[in-house]
Amino acid sequence: MDSAFEPGNGDWEARVRSSFERQGAMRHLGASIARLAPGQCTIALPYRPELSQQHGYFHAGISSTVADSAGGYAALTLFPAQTEVVTVEFKINLLAPALGDALVAEAAVVRSGRTLTVCSVEVLVERDGARACCALMQQTLMRVAATR
Amino acid sequence: MDSAFEPGNGDWEARVRSSFERQGAMRHLGASIARLAPGQCTIALPYRPELSQQHGYFHAGISSTVADSAGGYAALTLFPAQTEVVTVEFKINLLAPALGDALVAEAAVVRSGRTLTVCSVEVLVERDGARACCALMQQTLMRVAATR
Amino acid sequence: MDSAFEPGNGDWEARVRSSFERQGAMRHLGASIARLAPGQCTIALPYRPELSQQHGYFHAGISSTVADSAGGYAALTLFPAQTEVVTVEFKINLLAPALGDALVAEAAVVRSGRTLTVCSVEVLVERDGARACCALMQQTLMRVAATR
Amino acid sequence: MDSAFEPGNGDWEARVRSSFERQGAMRHLGASIARLAPGQCTIALPYRPELSQQHGYFHAGISSTVADSAGGYAALTLFPAQTEVVTVEFKINLLAPALGDALVAEAAVVRSGRTLTVCSVEVLVERDGARACCALMQQTLMRVAATR
Repeated sequence: MDSAFEPGNGDWEARVRSSFERQGAMRHLGASIARLAPGQCTIALPYRPELSQQHGYFHAGISSTVADSAGGYAALTLFPAQTEVVTVEFKINLLAPALGDALVAEAAVVRSGRTLTVCSVEVLVERDGARACCALMQQTLMRVAATR
Repeated sequence: MDSAFEPGNGDWEARVRSSFERQGAMRHLGASIARLAPGQCTIALPYRPELSQQHGYFHAGISSTVADSAGGYAALTLFPAQTEVVTVEFKINLLAPALGDALVAEAAVVRSGRTLTVCSVEVLVERDGARACCALMQQTLMRVAATR
Repeated sequence: MDSAFEPGNGDWEARVRSSFERQGAMRHLGASIARLAPGQCTIALPYRPELSQQHGYFHAGISSTVADSAGGYAALTLFPAQTEVVTVEFKINLLAPALGDALVAEAAVVRSGRTLTVCSVEVLVERDGARACCALMQQTLMRVAATR
Repeated sequence: MDSAFEPGNGDWEARVRSSFERQGAMRHLGASIARLAPGQCTIALPYRPELSQQHGYFHAGISSTVADSAGGYAALTLFPAQTEVVTVEFKINLLAPALGDALVAEAAVVRSGRTLTVCSVEVLVERDGARACCALMQQTLMRVAATR
């Protein structure tokens, strides 16, 4: 995969953080950005019963939500000014029960095109200090003109 | 696709509703079951800013979460007693901005096997009384022995 | 889903058939267009041992190949002149063994945007005069400027 | 991801090669196994016009076919005796035009479960001695009892 990316503009970090803060869903779940770099974004989410499926694990949709945001912001770091990111589609495999103290979604851009960006996102679950991969996402995003 | 399914046991409706109530994530988002039938499940979710992405639409991950639960419970209606459902993987296309008053995820089983079930889920967004399809999911689920 | 589409230009049928004839892979497999309509394309492929996996069924990749072409041409029927279609990604579930005399891939556009088109493709296998669904594809395509 | 796997039985290599030789589709396309190891399989496919889409590139379905076989055989290396592999589903992103002298599909198991295996497959295209990633697949496979 591509190993290095140039950020899309000088303000990339501020732009990503500002967009993240406008995502009501991230705040409602309790997620935060753990790491940002050009072409990469990591989002962390501590466990709460409000995020569970019927067995007390993180709900697959919640894993998808943080993975989707992580991939979207990994893509956005590379976009030029006056553009925004929207998710076209994604596919996620739930590899193991997401049972633990926190989810960590690590996203990396694997292909950065003029219109479309493809990200790979690994979702890890932390438990008793160890991390295990619990989900794997392959995601397509589109660059669109900013609407404001 | 298959047009009719037999429920997996006499208690299918109570079993689905009981499982749904144990999903902390569904309650935290504000989702409810709107319709249940053998092989089908519809989940509705009224809009709140807590469910939004950065432009105020429903977050793609939130659409995925209700679609994933709808598909899982559509599958569970057909399962025999003493079994449970887990999501293996899903793929979702976001077809249009999910801007509106409520999401409605309509899931239907398209293939019911002994081990694996495949569902198709359409996510509609309601706005000013009209409904439009905003996402389409194709999902694989597995039947597992009940753990309790 | 959308129920009716306008073709992209007056030549849509000739354009699709000409493109199909340039696909060496379709000829090499022995596939042909069985039906064309605005937003729809059906491709048929008779069985030969050269198309099999290790158990004598149609290879999953072969099912994917005809489904991918069917979706691409369903999309192309709606495109304006001087544009072409490329596949962005697809996801396919293999629902049942593809054992039979012929494959039939029926593609329909479910969302036609300016840049991206989404298709749903059902792959049927014919056996002793009956048809059964053996695969289901959800596919994203992009409109690009014609290169010649 | 998991970094090491134990082969499923002493005959894993012979079993994979024997199964590959029974795939009429691999022979018809001209593909061969380039590398085998526990949890890994690489398949190579030289270019021919018979494998092309309308612009002369490798057809997306052909890329999918070799990627699907590579993933299936990566999985099979880990299976116990008297079992076989079937593809449940896969999703592939076409990242760049597959224009070149050969395709190389490198598959690796990322999760090996009792029933389900998940593989990641990278498809490279070789051109003038250089290799570039042209497609990325995420695939789910199932272990089934051998039928003969």
